[in-house]
Amino acid sequence: MAKFIERLDKAASSNRSLLSIGIDPAPSSMPIDDIATFTTAIIEATSDLVCAYKPQMAFFEAEGIAGLRALEATIRAIPSNIPIILDAKRGDIGNTSAAYAKAAFEVWGADAITVSPYMGTDSVDPFTAYSDRGVFVLTRTSNPGGADFEDKLLLDSNEPLYIEVTRRAIQWNSHGNVGLVVGATTPDELTRVRDICGDMPILLPGIGAQGGDLESSISNGVDRHGRRAIINVARGVLYASSGADFAEAARREATRIRDSINTELDRLGYPWE
Amino acid sequence: MAKFIERLDKAASSNRSLLSIGIDPAPSSMPIDDIATFTTAIIEATSDLVCAYKPQMAFFEAEGIAGLRALEATIRAIPSNIPIILDAKRGDIGNTSAAYAKAAFEVWGADAITVSPYMGTDSVDPFTAYSDRGVFVLTRTSNPGGADFEDKLLLDSNEPLYIEVTRRAIQWNSHGNVGLVVGATTPDELTRVRDICGDMPILLPGIGAQGGDLESSISNGVDRHGRRAIINVARGVLYASSGADFAEAARREATRIRDSINTELDRLGYPWE
Repeated sequence: MAKFIERLDKAASSNRSLLSIGIDPAPSSMPIDDIATFTTAIIEATSDLVCAYKPQMAFFEAEGIAGLRALEATIRAIPSNIPIILDAKRGDIGNTSAAYAKAAFEVWGADAITVSPYMGTDSVDPFTAYSDRGVFVLTRTSNPGGADFEDKLLLDSNEPLYIEVTRRAIQWNSHGNVGLVVGATTPDELTRVRDICGDMPILLPGIGAQGGDLESSISNGVDRHGRRAIINVARGVLYASSGADFAEAARREATRIRDSINTELDRLGYPWE
Repeated sequence: MAKFIERLDKAASSNRSLLSIGIDPAPSSMPIDDIATFTTAIIEATSDLVCAYKPQMAFFEAEGIAGLRALEATIRAIPSNIPIILDAKRGDIGNTSAAYAKAAFEVWGADAITVSPYMGTDSVDPFTAYSDRGVFVLTRTSNPGGADFEDKLLLDSNEPLYIEVTRRAIQWNSHGNVGLVVGATTPDELTRVRDICGDMPILLPGIGAQGGDLESSISNGVDRHGRRAIINVARGVLYASSGADFAEAARREATRIRDSINTELDRLGYPWE
């Protein structure tokens, strides 16, 4: 299997898109009852518009075994050329992280996963050991509590914790399969992370429902080639309509966002070839 | 339902035990093939010796849907008077943490969960909102990488990150349902956390396979009444024998550890009544 970053780049360029759709099936928001029917319709309506899909484990786990069967069906519905980033924020001691990595990559069949850095190097190593899969490390998250610890200045460096995490993530990138998660809600922090991390991919949640700004996320988030920012939108696309036209509405909204991203890329001098 | 801490205290005093058994069913280590048969036998052989069981989600997830069915069976096998601490180390933005909390407490039926603090207050709130359930916050973990970030000194306090997490966890304890996870491998850090957190429960993994010392974990970990330390052992009990006598061997080893803990409690002047 090609490396994750190659598959990501290829999906982005063939669909001319930096948009990722977050698959967060919350039954109370869904226009229909069945999760797999809902997610499959969304995927079929949008798979030529995205560089990745990001299923959120929590929403499937919250429905128990039936929800995890829906996760299986959702993953089967995603075309093989579109990478799947499983949003799971896992991390534990070494042998336990190895079990989580097996679950994500061998059981569910994800191409990449999000992980929490709190427990340090040996909690992340079992994920990066799958050298053809991607590992996105939480760095500066999009939520209000992202400031509680991630922004704390460290005594030895006079830099915030999220910068220390960025520097460690660079060390963890010996297989070239590590990326970072930075919220679209904090553009200055995004700029600092991009300045340090070179051309590593950055997953950017927080556009839309969480209030992140699209233009600054792109201008601050892309690498020196105008690529490697993965702009994730979930609720704004999934729940664009609460009616029977939800899939068409999702397609319209995904097209609008993809095109807005591309307009900004053009403006910045990074058109698709 | 009584509060988690009351159920924990009651199980501890009725079994005269601060021992928790970690249920980490790794097929490569198991003496028999079927996870649910294995975990049920372990539970039946030990449930009068423990104050809690701690199933590790990762080992069940690693076996896919069949593994999660085994988790259901495992949880069903645990007597209702013994609290179940689901080791999952979850944490995400608010609406996603709410889905994880629903999964842990409503789907799987856990009495408590472990959470990661990295994403801050709003990532933990949806768990503590279940006021009758327990929430154990990762503080200073038992693994080598626990030093990478958790030990970093903060500029504003000149204290390590794990102490800042402890202070936040105290703030998060308004429902009286928060505990801390501190590795048995770092006795000095355990002492500092206990000094600050009063009588909050501390979950102590790391005895046995990870090299933590039992006596110092008890003397440094208990509260001023000699209680509220949950000494977790997984591999040492589960895999005490690789033969057909695995359940009897697990019982022997659990008895030995429980009694060693009680000998130390006696020595410290905290006998059971």
